[in-house]
Amino acid sequence: MKLTTVDNQTRDGQLVVVNRAGSHAVKVPQIAMTLQQALDDWEHTAPQLNTVYQQLNAGEIADAYALDMADVLAPLPRAHQFLDGSAYLAHVERVRKARGADMPPSFLEDPLMYQAVSDGFLSATENIEVVSEEYGIDFEAEAAVITGDVPMHVSADEAGNYIQLITILNDVSLRNLIPSELAKGFGFMQSKPRSALAPFFVTPDELGSAWRGHKIHLPMRTKYNDEWFGEPNCGVDMQFDFAELIAHAAKTRPLSAGAIIGSGTIANHDMSKGSTCLAEKRVLEVIANGSASTPFMRFGDTVEIHIEDDKGHNIFGTIKQKVTEYAWHRD
Amino acid sequence: MKLTTVDNQTRDGQLVVVNRAGSHAVKVPQIAMTLQQALDDWEHTAPQLNTVYQQLNAGEIADAYALDMADVLAPLPRAHQFLDGSAYLAHVERVRKARGADMPPSFLEDPLMYQAVSDGFLSATENIEVVSEEYGIDFEAEAAVITGDVPMHVSADEAGNYIQLITILNDVSLRNLIPSELAKGFGFMQSKPRSALAPFFVTPDELGSAWRGHKIHLPMRTKYNDEWFGEPNCGVDMQFDFAELIAHAAKTRPLSAGAIIGSGTIANHDMSKGSTCLAEKRVLEVIANGSASTPFMRFGDTVEIHIEDDKGHNIFGTIKQKVTEYAWHRD
Repeated sequence: MKLTTVDNQTRDGQLVVVNRAGSHAVKVPQIAMTLQQALDDWEHTAPQLNTVYQQLNAGEIADAYALDMADVLAPLPRAHQFLDGSAYLAHVERVRKARGADMPPSFLEDPLMYQAVSDGFLSATENIEVVSEEYGIDFEAEAAVITGDVPMHVSADEAGNYIQLITILNDVSLRNLIPSELAKGFGFMQSKPRSALAPFFVTPDELGSAWRGHKIHLPMRTKYNDEWFGEPNCGVDMQFDFAELIAHAAKTRPLSAGAIIGSGTIANHDMSKGSTCLAEKRVLEVIANGSASTPFMRFGDTVEIHIEDDKGHNIFGTIKQKVTEYAWHRD
Repeated sequence: MKLTTVDNQTRDGQLVVVNRAGSHAVKVPQIAMTLQQALDDWEHTAPQLNTVYQQLNAGEIADAYALDMADVLAPLPRAHQFLDGSAYLAHVERVRKARGADMPPSFLEDPLMYQAVSDGFLSATENIEVVSEEYGIDFEAEAAVITGDVPMHVSADEAGNYIQLITILNDVSLRNLIPSELAKGFGFMQSKPRSALAPFFVTPDELGSAWRGHKIHLPMRTKYNDEWFGEPNCGVDMQFDFAELIAHAAKTRPLSAGAIIGSGTIANHDMSKGSTCLAEKRVLEVIANGSASTPFMRFGDTVEIHIEDDKGHNIFGTIKQKVTEYAWHRD
């Protein structure tokens, strides 16, 4: 099934079930007012939501309405946890190379993951407001799963059972703030502001055979300023699948229902597939030409991200965002 | 005023107003069911909650009841954000010294802060369940503030206006997991499991003159296995006050209502004040004797943390926790 959240002037918005085509929706207050409420009691709410979804697809719901994408918020406008992995080592190798660092061999066995901001997610069409272009504004196209309650110390073999929903996201990155922040040793904070979530969360069954081995076996399609930028396959070169990422996340703590686990920037070793972030494109330019010719994002630049199934249907909806100047000094 | 959350078999529990003595409480469903709901609309709820608090202290509330501390959850059983600073450089210097690292001069100007886990907080009396003593189990006594909605890029001069509530917490740390985790560059994750929050959150006015300059000017009293362990003053040697920590946190992103900003481990340069974590005590032993004689926590060990005002009244209630073995292998 396919779910999202529409604006009802509350912080968490209102849960709606969306039809497979992403064109129509129905509110389900009799089941749950918010997606977090549904996730909090998923064992009971999921079957009910799925029944509504089947009826919606069959045209059997009288109060279904045409979904206005302008009303769609991030499906979780705020969450209690976002842990972002970095499972595509082609990306890790390239961005480390850009700052003159090799990738330690342990990275093949031990996932990279950081605690990321979750108190607010941008909607798929919300502007990325940044104070200064000097921050080195970049996007990162990622896949993510949303978990149920995961027990502490779960094994990777078991962890896949806790994947309730799947989506994609844009992990906004401020590249020029990263070196000094990582040098302090405490990880990303100022350099990773709020991410944007795709319009729709879907259950794994929606991906059919493209969901196997706890990976999405489809290309992540990214456009930059409306031009092709990359289409690496999310199922290729993913060193750690989502079950392994969840097990890593839960090694010393349980995860609460609604935890979002990100894959890290999608990247394939096959360079013909392009990139899903500017940092990588710049590294490839340095390797080819000795210097980077593509600047980071400037005010007005746009990024567009989506995934299609093998029939060309847009699964999660499209993230399309513009970078704008944050007008703090004019307040 | 003084607030907490009692167990009502929901994930967020039920908000109660607590009298100044911490002995009696009253439920306030007519104002807000949960503390997060109250924080979401603080401008309207805070004055109403304060009226109830005044009446409760005056003995004018008929349905006040004796508060059973066994019912008290973490005041925010789950939050959307916890950012933990490290504002006491005496602590930073000492723990870095333990691993042979100097403190860069930039640490005097640029706060250390990491994104910490917030999807669940232990109650003040909940056992700290850990898989293995080999993780190097430690406590850290900290102060924290809870913010309203903080605009992005707020100045430190303005940031103090967004402090709604104050508390203390135990930032559970797994010391032996820290070196390899920090070496990966992505900050703390497995090495910092869930923290425990004190029983009560209070508004700044509850601290009277002990709250000034956005610091708590009172000793943080810690006992380890029921013996005196330390009493450094939270107002001494705090390099960055809470307003500066909030401004640092919000440099590139807004903060949503209910964000928890931690001070980092309380530590004074005056070593006679003792410590508020084992790691520091061990470093001082290394300096004095060449090796650490105090082991990290073992199953059964307890830590107790509280703050008293100048009349000896316990402000936030007492955190007292025991470390126990997490029985994952017996599931």
